[in-house]
Amino acid sequence: MNINVELWGAHTGNSLRAAIALEEAGVSYSVRRVDLRGGEQRTPEFLALNPAAQVPVLIEMSDQARLILPQSNAIMFYAAARSNGDLLPEAGSTAYFAVLERFFYFLTDVIGFSATGFFLKSREIPGGDVLYDHVIDRATQAERFLAASEYMAGDKFSIADIAAFTIIWAFRERMDWPNVPQLHEWYQRVLARPAVQRGLHAFCRRSVDQ
Amino acid sequence: MNINVELWGAHTGNSLRAAIALEEAGVSYSVRRVDLRGGEQRTPEFLALNPAAQVPVLIEMSDQARLILPQSNAIMFYAAARSNGDLLPEAGSTAYFAVLERFFYFLTDVIGFSATGFFLKSREIPGGDVLYDHVIDRATQAERFLAASEYMAGDKFSIADIAAFTIIWAFRERMDWPNVPQLHEWYQRVLARPAVQRGLHAFCRRSVDQ
Repeated sequence: MNINVELWGAHTGNSLRAAIALEEAGVSYSVRRVDLRGGEQRTPEFLALNPAAQVPVLIEMSDQARLILPQSNAIMFYAAARSNGDLLPEAGSTAYFAVLERFFYFLTDVIGFSATGFFLKSREIPGGDVLYDHVIDRATQAERFLAASEYMAGDKFSIADIAAFTIIWAFRERMDWPNVPQLHEWYQRVLARPAVQRGLHAFCRRSVDQ
Repeated sequence: MNINVELWGAHTGNSLRAAIALEEAGVSYSVRRVDLRGGEQRTPEFLALNPAAQVPVLIEMSDQARLILPQSNAIMFYAAARSNGDLLPEAGSTAYFAVLERFFYFLTDVIGFSATGFFLKSREIPGGDVLYDHVIDRATQAERFLAASEYMAGDKFSIADIAAFTIIWAFRERMDWPNVPQLHEWYQRVLARPAVQRGLHAFCRRSVDQ
């Protein structure tokens, strides 16, 4: 079956998280850059893909069907489903729950505070700095996840590492690195992964379709 | 195999979401109420379960092993894995991605704003009201998800409905119900589910273990 995957996005944390997951899963995809500053996310063409006017959106086209998938985290699960268990172990296994626990820690307790902090700061409403401080605090506490294992949820790289990496990467200049040596080693190890590097730069290079 | 499940929690949105998911999945569990006002989440016994000092935490004890699972959303996936596909279709299927898209919409774009809004308001820091307004706005927009189907991600009740319900239930007095007739019908339908009623009251009744 002929399958064609496009990732519509921009150089934002949510889009990079999706791109890194696709790269780590070995999914072939083409990048469609959405010009957020130019308001492309509010064009009729884009709103037909995602009425919420948000990137990223994944489109999977096959001979039979077309899947349109907004939500960066849903795209991470798409990538995981295409990775043969590499990024998320089999549903119901102990390893699956270990990955999900850590994944949701970063999603709700770290990334969620960054997203809403940005929401307030971009509107010049107070409160954003306090939320950003919480991001640093909770990211710092992740040092304990690495006490006995190489990755965030055990000895295998997973979607928990991708979630953790993109937010810590965004705040890398505010991290007190000497205070979190295991986290620093983990960060360098993840940063050096070729798929992570490709994902981080996915929305920098020219789209193959444009 | 003898399996014993405990849900440690309190009468909070996160704990109720986990309880409703277990009820909907038909998982037998006993409730362990954690006295948040009394600081029980900071006792050595509780911190051994979750160093982040947060409820809920699920504990599954069998003859062979003990699974300790913090994070309400991870517990929802635990319930889904025990539901034989009722709450989350098979990984990789189109229906699976449809449920995840809507689940993450509510988790990140609605519940995340409520959680951080509460974080600011409980510290008397400005910004919380704006985040709460966003919760109402995004919950209101969910009217479109119900235009062609009975539940948030199609014709079957799923974890997307549980995520949507708990947050809309928490904000029910602020919803402009006449403006969202489909959402109102869905809300009444979900509220009337016996498992939802049991989950909503899980932390009101006396714990079976106390």
